[in-house]
Amino acid sequence: MLKVNENYLKLPGSYLFSAIGKKVSAYGAAHPEKRIIRLGIGDVTQPLVPAVTEALHGAVEEMGKAETFRGYAPDLGYEFLRRAIAEGDYKALGCDIAEDEIFVSDGAKCDSGNIQEIFALDNRVAVCDPVYPVYVDSNVMAGRAGTYDSKREVWSNILYMPCTEDNGFVPELPREVPDLIYLCFPNNPTGSAVTRAQLQEWVDYANKVGAVILYDAAYEAYISESDVPHSIYECEGARTCAIELRSFSKNAGFTGLRLGFTVVPKELERGGTALHSLWARRHGTKYNGAPYIVQRAGEAVYSKAGREQLKEQIDYYKKNAAYILHGLREAGYKVYGGVNSPYVWLKTPKGMSSWEFFDCLLENVNVVGTPGSGFGPSGEGYFRLTAFGSYENTVEAVDRMKVLSL
Amino acid sequence: MLKVNENYLKLPGSYLFSAIGKKVSAYGAAHPEKRIIRLGIGDVTQPLVPAVTEALHGAVEEMGKAETFRGYAPDLGYEFLRRAIAEGDYKALGCDIAEDEIFVSDGAKCDSGNIQEIFALDNRVAVCDPVYPVYVDSNVMAGRAGTYDSKREVWSNILYMPCTEDNGFVPELPREVPDLIYLCFPNNPTGSAVTRAQLQEWVDYANKVGAVILYDAAYEAYISESDVPHSIYECEGARTCAIELRSFSKNAGFTGLRLGFTVVPKELERGGTALHSLWARRHGTKYNGAPYIVQRAGEAVYSKAGREQLKEQIDYYKKNAAYILHGLREAGYKVYGGVNSPYVWLKTPKGMSSWEFFDCLLENVNVVGTPGSGFGPSGEGYFRLTAFGSYENTVEAVDRMKVLSL
Repeated sequence: MLKVNENYLKLPGSYLFSAIGKKVSAYGAAHPEKRIIRLGIGDVTQPLVPAVTEALHGAVEEMGKAETFRGYAPDLGYEFLRRAIAEGDYKALGCDIAEDEIFVSDGAKCDSGNIQEIFALDNRVAVCDPVYPVYVDSNVMAGRAGTYDSKREVWSNILYMPCTEDNGFVPELPREVPDLIYLCFPNNPTGSAVTRAQLQEWVDYANKVGAVILYDAAYEAYISESDVPHSIYECEGARTCAIELRSFSKNAGFTGLRLGFTVVPKELERGGTALHSLWARRHGTKYNGAPYIVQRAGEAVYSKAGREQLKEQIDYYKKNAAYILHGLREAGYKVYGGVNSPYVWLKTPKGMSSWEFFDCLLENVNVVGTPGSGFGPSGEGYFRLTAFGSYENTVEAVDRMKVLSL
Repeated sequence: MLKVNENYLKLPGSYLFSAIGKKVSAYGAAHPEKRIIRLGIGDVTQPLVPAVTEALHGAVEEMGKAETFRGYAPDLGYEFLRRAIAEGDYKALGCDIAEDEIFVSDGAKCDSGNIQEIFALDNRVAVCDPVYPVYVDSNVMAGRAGTYDSKREVWSNILYMPCTEDNGFVPELPREVPDLIYLCFPNNPTGSAVTRAQLQEWVDYANKVGAVILYDAAYEAYISESDVPHSIYECEGARTCAIELRSFSKNAGFTGLRLGFTVVPKELERGGTALHSLWARRHGTKYNGAPYIVQRAGEAVYSKAGREQLKEQIDYYKKNAAYILHGLREAGYKVYGGVNSPYVWLKTPKGMSSWEFFDCLLENVNVVGTPGSGFGPSGEGYFRLTAFGSYENTVEAVDRMKVLSL
């Protein structure tokens, strides 16, 4: 008799955003006359820029002709895209990342869910708290998380590193030594950033204890401050301890197009095994490449026209973030993030729980955000708003929130 | 200190097609004057049909406008595509498959590599021998395969079901009871097909012993004979024991576009857990949907124009398969498959090993095929040719092979 993977059964409830979706649908069905504004899920709303759609059209033309048709893509991704990434994202920063250390994929969510597969099941995982749920859930599903304490909402084998107002939402080095450390900066959900000097401490620590850092830099395009690193490879020694995950979703609006990449430096090894070879093996065996047309779209992101058009798009979202940050601050909310990030993290007023505030916002002003507690115990009492709406909706949502008496 | 997943280290050598690629590159570099014809990897060569490229262009237009832009796709795939699949692939056959039992993905390779995750690690896996390497390797990487016997080229915990000339390349029911049974018909690599009555025996067996069948129907578009089922759900009772994997690669030339789907009927449960909910959870947590534009391309496959254009394309490849089959048979080769399948499976002449014949073909007539032994021990002494080349190349390859004295 077949047995199911019992680790799946340990997962409490459903994925955060599914839960929100259901609540919003139910409210919308009961109140069809209300116009709900969604600043919840981190999905973009601006269309693909012309440089990208032109590249897509051109690649579709190629795929429709025998002479230029392309079948299976190379395992690591097309060279034209890996070269554009190596030059545009790394050489430009002075980081020494080779083309064949870049693995193109269909997005950072898949990569951040799949990357744990190449590590042993008895590694100790450390995550920020609050945290992007995929890091924890994918480790639970693999059997690395231990047992769930439903009262404290924590897993017995996961090290939680609280990110609070006290530490400026940047975690301190853990007291117990972890093997695998998930870091995401600019951070989802808190919108906080790490300075180069702070990140260097983490790199030094990981090298000292033999840990590996999984560095999620999906939001780097939103960095405004010069002492905030765009890549972990700006830190000395990162090539021997860090894997970096990147996405085209937030810098180019590819949430519906699906493209991302992971960097695994060749020097990075543990127990004599190069992690590069393991990830290459996973790619070769269980993945078949991102669509050619989407890889051409990715290449266009690095073109002169693409860069200019996308700078405008990111500036648009940054303007939203600034409006949320300053509007809510003026209205008396305690708010964080929003400077190097499309996310604003606010402390719920009047001691409300995150979900109480979610319901309060949904029911009173028809604004949808994301309850901080959905990202981990230290997120309780916080709430995430995103800058990815239209400017008009963002302004209206903030103005609606202002009238709530705090 | 971080530890790597040691299961990866047990995998012998690299993925079959990478190994072939290296040999061919080396030969090509040494003999730049030779024109090599590749009938090895199962990659298509005909361009996307007009119905598909039109749908892609239209969807790209939508993505470039704010009013019609689409971000994250629904977890299971867009309803328009799931409806087209349910109607076109299942209702048309009289199979009762609902839209929400269909999970859209970026291809059957990913699905067939990932699906094992939802099962416990101590399940006993049965595979056909020879077999598509992904089924075995993904189980090795998860730790389900036991130890490797490098002499016999088998894993201690995997049940191999030999597919030989004696049984017409359709396996017999295994002597030991497996929990998870991988079946692929029309078969890769042997090109053999299973009749509806034969498949019904497997369904009855799985229901009796509580096993689950993972049925890979990626090649169903090549079926010519009426007693060969296009879907396992044509068999009575399959809804309580079978998951079906399907691909757009071979019926619509999407190898470079990436689209597939998996069907998990809601009645399918083991130990009181619905497998549908587990696969939905995996999709929700570790995957983020196929690109909107590719899902629109998939929808076009089911349109009237798409069907007509693709019938022509499949007939083209079928003509190649027939040319290989009859040409080589006339020349004295023993050949199988090729009737309900784009693959022809030939017995190597003069008792050569599969790799000896690979080298012989590459060096003497510059034709590339796939050594049968790469698919498992019972593939030794066999060789796979595919019908996915151009007609001209296929004819030339077969004619070249005819002159080899057998």
